[in-house]
Amino acid sequence: MKNQKRIRDYGISIGTLKTGKLNAISDVFGVKVGHVTLKDKEIQTGVTAILPHGGNIFKEKVVASSHVINGFGKTMGTIQIEELGYIETPIILTNTLSIGTAADALVFHMLQQNEEIGISTGTVNPVVGECNDMFLNDIRGQHVTKEHVQAAIVNASGEFEEGAVGAGRGMSCYQLKGGIGSASRLIEYKGETFTLGALVLSNFGLKKDLIINGKSVGAMIEDHEENNPEEREKGSIMVILATDLPLTERQLKRISKRANVGLNRTGSYIGNGSGDIVISFSTANRIQHFEKAMTTEWQIINENYIDYAFRAVGEAVEEAVLNSMITAETTTGRNGNSRTSLQEYVELFTKS
Amino acid sequence: MKNQKRIRDYGISIGTLKTGKLNAISDVFGVKVGHVTLKDKEIQTGVTAILPHGGNIFKEKVVASSHVINGFGKTMGTIQIEELGYIETPIILTNTLSIGTAADALVFHMLQQNEEIGISTGTVNPVVGECNDMFLNDIRGQHVTKEHVQAAIVNASGEFEEGAVGAGRGMSCYQLKGGIGSASRLIEYKGETFTLGALVLSNFGLKKDLIINGKSVGAMIEDHEENNPEEREKGSIMVILATDLPLTERQLKRISKRANVGLNRTGSYIGNGSGDIVISFSTANRIQHFEKAMTTEWQIINENYIDYAFRAVGEAVEEAVLNSMITAETTTGRNGNSRTSLQEYVELFTKS
Amino acid sequence: MKNQKRIRDYGISIGTLKTGKLNAISDVFGVKVGHVTLKDKEIQTGVTAILPHGGNIFKEKVVASSHVINGFGKTMGTIQIEELGYIETPIILTNTLSIGTAADALVFHMLQQNEEIGISTGTVNPVVGECNDMFLNDIRGQHVTKEHVQAAIVNASGEFEEGAVGAGRGMSCYQLKGGIGSASRLIEYKGETFTLGALVLSNFGLKKDLIINGKSVGAMIEDHEENNPEEREKGSIMVILATDLPLTERQLKRISKRANVGLNRTGSYIGNGSGDIVISFSTANRIQHFEKAMTTEWQIINENYIDYAFRAVGEAVEEAVLNSMITAETTTGRNGNSRTSLQEYVELFTKS
Amino acid sequence: MKNQKRIRDYGISIGTLKTGKLNAISDVFGVKVGHVTLKDKEIQTGVTAILPHGGNIFKEKVVASSHVINGFGKTMGTIQIEELGYIETPIILTNTLSIGTAADALVFHMLQQNEEIGISTGTVNPVVGECNDMFLNDIRGQHVTKEHVQAAIVNASGEFEEGAVGAGRGMSCYQLKGGIGSASRLIEYKGETFTLGALVLSNFGLKKDLIINGKSVGAMIEDHEENNPEEREKGSIMVILATDLPLTERQLKRISKRANVGLNRTGSYIGNGSGDIVISFSTANRIQHFEKAMTTEWQIINENYIDYAFRAVGEAVEEAVLNSMITAETTTGRNGNSRTSLQEYVELFTKS
Repeated sequence: MKNQKRIRDYGISIGTLKTGKLNAISDVFGVKVGHVTLKDKEIQTGVTAILPHGGNIFKEKVVASSHVINGFGKTMGTIQIEELGYIETPIILTNTLSIGTAADALVFHMLQQNEEIGISTGTVNPVVGECNDMFLNDIRGQHVTKEHVQAAIVNASGEFEEGAVGAGRGMSCYQLKGGIGSASRLIEYKGETFTLGALVLSNFGLKKDLIINGKSVGAMIEDHEENNPEEREKGSIMVILATDLPLTERQLKRISKRANVGLNRTGSYIGNGSGDIVISFSTANRIQHFEKAMTTEWQIINENYIDYAFRAVGEAVEEAVLNSMITAETTTGRNGNSRTSLQEYVELFTKS
Repeated sequence: MKNQKRIRDYGISIGTLKTGKLNAISDVFGVKVGHVTLKDKEIQTGVTAILPHGGNIFKEKVVASSHVINGFGKTMGTIQIEELGYIETPIILTNTLSIGTAADALVFHMLQQNEEIGISTGTVNPVVGECNDMFLNDIRGQHVTKEHVQAAIVNASGEFEEGAVGAGRGMSCYQLKGGIGSASRLIEYKGETFTLGALVLSNFGLKKDLIINGKSVGAMIEDHEENNPEEREKGSIMVILATDLPLTERQLKRISKRANVGLNRTGSYIGNGSGDIVISFSTANRIQHFEKAMTTEWQIINENYIDYAFRAVGEAVEEAVLNSMITAETTTGRNGNSRTSLQEYVELFTKS
Repeated sequence: MKNQKRIRDYGISIGTLKTGKLNAISDVFGVKVGHVTLKDKEIQTGVTAILPHGGNIFKEKVVASSHVINGFGKTMGTIQIEELGYIETPIILTNTLSIGTAADALVFHMLQQNEEIGISTGTVNPVVGECNDMFLNDIRGQHVTKEHVQAAIVNASGEFEEGAVGAGRGMSCYQLKGGIGSASRLIEYKGETFTLGALVLSNFGLKKDLIINGKSVGAMIEDHEENNPEEREKGSIMVILATDLPLTERQLKRISKRANVGLNRTGSYIGNGSGDIVISFSTANRIQHFEKAMTTEWQIINENYIDYAFRAVGEAVEEAVLNSMITAETTTGRNGNSRTSLQEYVELFTKS
Repeated sequence: MKNQKRIRDYGISIGTLKTGKLNAISDVFGVKVGHVTLKDKEIQTGVTAILPHGGNIFKEKVVASSHVINGFGKTMGTIQIEELGYIETPIILTNTLSIGTAADALVFHMLQQNEEIGISTGTVNPVVGECNDMFLNDIRGQHVTKEHVQAAIVNASGEFEEGAVGAGRGMSCYQLKGGIGSASRLIEYKGETFTLGALVLSNFGLKKDLIINGKSVGAMIEDHEENNPEEREKGSIMVILATDLPLTERQLKRISKRANVGLNRTGSYIGNGSGDIVISFSTANRIQHFEKAMTTEWQIINENYIDYAFRAVGEAVEEAVLNSMITAETTTGRNGNSRTSLQEYVELFTKS
């Protein structure tokens, strides 16, 4: 979006559905994304905030679901999402050892916005996801501060950078440079158009497995290289899905499970050491915190038509992973470790 | 195995791991598979039985797990598998509307083998999976009998047919002919060799989505054809996984979840109307029904090495789906409906 | 209801909420219950059918959920309930080894009612629950036939018998006679009145644990008796909940989980060998099988008020269990085994 | 333990099994508990740490499971517990809005102990549970610091205080004073003796519902009082279970689910607004972080005997809740709010 060259700009079109205007999660009306990036030698990390809408999220919650693809991860807040079917804060992404700080900052942010919390109403459920950026980042240093988290929330806007930014700063994907990527799809039903967007924090996979639009690019890269020290996967991926389809939390969970499709098509075998977690929300049905009515009225999608949304998720997640890689520049960090950008191998997948 | 030409025989090699001797689920020592096939005009259906070992399965249970990829399905027995972590009967596969008959027959079979059931010990948990073969089969006729189920169990052997046989007789896959397929992989750890095998009953997918080893063969087929009436997916897939790796039921469940990888790589978007269910078992740790000891000793795999098994599942399931298609002959059934064999399109994926 | 003396008639009032008119699951408008009872020496078993409404349940499905308290059970149909959030058949209860027959009969019944199934629309998901009545019944004989299942459906009405009838004929509860019991509660919110009803098939527990309204009646009974051979629990309980509260399937699941409260207060420790399963449905929001609209409108309860429903479930289930016992007469069956009616011990819990 | 008068000291004996020596979670060999208590006018809160054993928990993990009874809670770490079946840190309990700080402190503690984390091995999964103490505590102030968390870990010992201490300082139970309570049971099998212990952080329930050993004490208390303003439950309970039984994580989960039994018998209806979460571990089977062997040998309990453990959990949790109340003194905090000690009502439940 921000003048970065994305995977489509190299002629790679994933799937058959139309994209939204930005081809990003922020094509869903009201969704915004903000980053704070820390890059200074051994410190290669950051924070990314995803805001479901521009209002007070605690007072006007959005229907939400989570899905654990592989649970070697520390994402916070999913117990309550599963029980109650909504989120009530922005979603914060950061490195694994900074989730405590992120949660603390997010709670503080919510307290500032909502003076009833802890006085005349209950508490708040902070939602924080993470990946392990220890390869490039001094993760033990816990360099993320509460102020960084606040700033990521404040920075949020509809257009945002991808690649080695925000929480993606220190991440690796298929042993190349990973990070933040996004994509969207339009779902056209009987004259109505809905939007589904994905944002990923990519940090998983072995180089030899990378597939780009059906082509085994990873194996081709390895053929080019002299020595490939074997690594064990210690990665993760966070997938955030947003949509304006009117859904229940059960329907959202079904949609979330299709994130696998996109991941697997880029080559993932869903390794043991990877925390692969999906958090999804619909902006269409909202829950008022101080609702007084006995019942509320919802529009709910006819499930006979949900296949279109399933297809949209697979495509958007696949493209978001590729965008997270192609927009990320080669990065060197902790202990001189370095991850090469996929940009270096463009000729391998653009030649037919 | 039975002189059928399989996907490898056309030069398609899925993944990088070695296969077992038969490249089938029965490479896992003791596992046997039996079919009964009904084929007579409108009746295109059958039964497939998978036996975890050659002994009394009720008295010597095997560690097991199940995993629901998409639950638009009627598989029986999973509540108890999840609670207790074992199976105690053969696994029966048949068409959706015959699961009652299959369960009844399986219970009867177990009663014959175990005179203590219902007298001096409790009951038995029949495990029955299904797919919907209504496109080719007169499924309303409920043509499967208890005798067919018994015969499938009795017929079981290490070498077995694939394709349009047994429960696979009436199934469709990517709108081509589907059915029974199998494959296996060897897992070599520190000088020890373990085997993981998959058997699928394939009955899912739209033609346009079929991918063979990264190649969009389905789209190519559609280009060849004149009219392609749109169908809504009403299919399913059953995946049975067997291994001699010593696993807990939790580890088996993790392995089962990687069946997705194989399915997605053949092109599945995991449609709404598809009942996609995995049942897996390990023959290495067994539970004696009449165990008297207070504690028993188990060997359990070091989970740091489980990634090899994950990779094996993805590869074996992908190959099993392709085997189920390539071995199945073109079949015509109910109402003159017909499914073409993938064999008709060999040139599309064998030319480089 | 049918002139049987129930637990309230002995002065035992469970909880504080008002009951419905019949104090039964059929207080929820449209819900009906039918039994077929087999009682002939060694044969002490039967079938109970619960109908969510009087129309075509396949074409007009009801929102539903299931919850496994302990999964040593063989209930069928829950995979699809969980995935799609509805039921589309009556619920059939019978003995453990007759579930195949019951499923087969239920499928046949649905095919008769719906000629589109398997032709122009997909299949149907039969919901069958069970308990193990082997203590009193020749369960190995599989004496339930398809005709019995059909008859139970046809027999259904708003007023029905409790105790040693239908599927409850051979069941034991706290080593006394158990079977079918029911109760209901009214939920009054802001001038609107909703109803929640429970029906149980009780077949669990050890005598020493029985508690009636806080009083350890079981221990008192054991003190009266000369010898009490130790038994290991091989029982189960099925709990069916119905309500006209407008709920999503997630909310129904939350409500279902409170069935535990009622069970535990009658003394259950939720034994290993017990299959304790809840199936619940709401008649308020219905899903039309052939819905064409893109979205449908639902009324959904404001979850801030759901605590009243939670309380109602605990009370109704506790009372339903006690009703299942107090209405069941002393019964002798297989091998001369006998279960005494709780009626024999009335003085122990009616004296203050 | 620490010279506090507990519920047994008032003549209330819960259940029939023997208790361990201390009748506390620390009867399980190696388990220790530490508190830091903050009490200064509006600040009524604290931290409690539970240590599974005295060694390096990251390097020598213990088999673990979690179970969500009601998920209106923010407990961290359960995704990884469920996936991998172990815990690798002490368990920290504190107030809801301090979980971020607690996680951050716990990560820091683990980094100090394990210099490989984030360098040559992966990250660490902090386990933090919480309840909402806003009624008595200025929870918005986030008064818990990293130093408090560290100190609670350092303070841990086998004998520990119960009641209004540590994380329990500001908690309410049945609208009386709640907090930390513990109890244990011995499980005697074939000459071997195992121990199961429970620790609760109690913060749930309405006064009218309190039951003590079958007696409706809460209703009796309300009869004594003049006005009882209605409150909506905004509480929670954390239940920590420890045992030296050799169990798999699946067996531990089954055991964890029986915590309900104890809660329900004290009167809980498991309210909507309550985060009721169980975390359990077995000290008998341990996982070495740097295990090199391909397989490891486990002793696993014969599940036919697991009922004794189920009974032990129900009894220990019921008694732990009562201990948390009877040991807690009347406490006044935020805004002059006050919770009365159960000690004030001793005569209601000690008179027969």
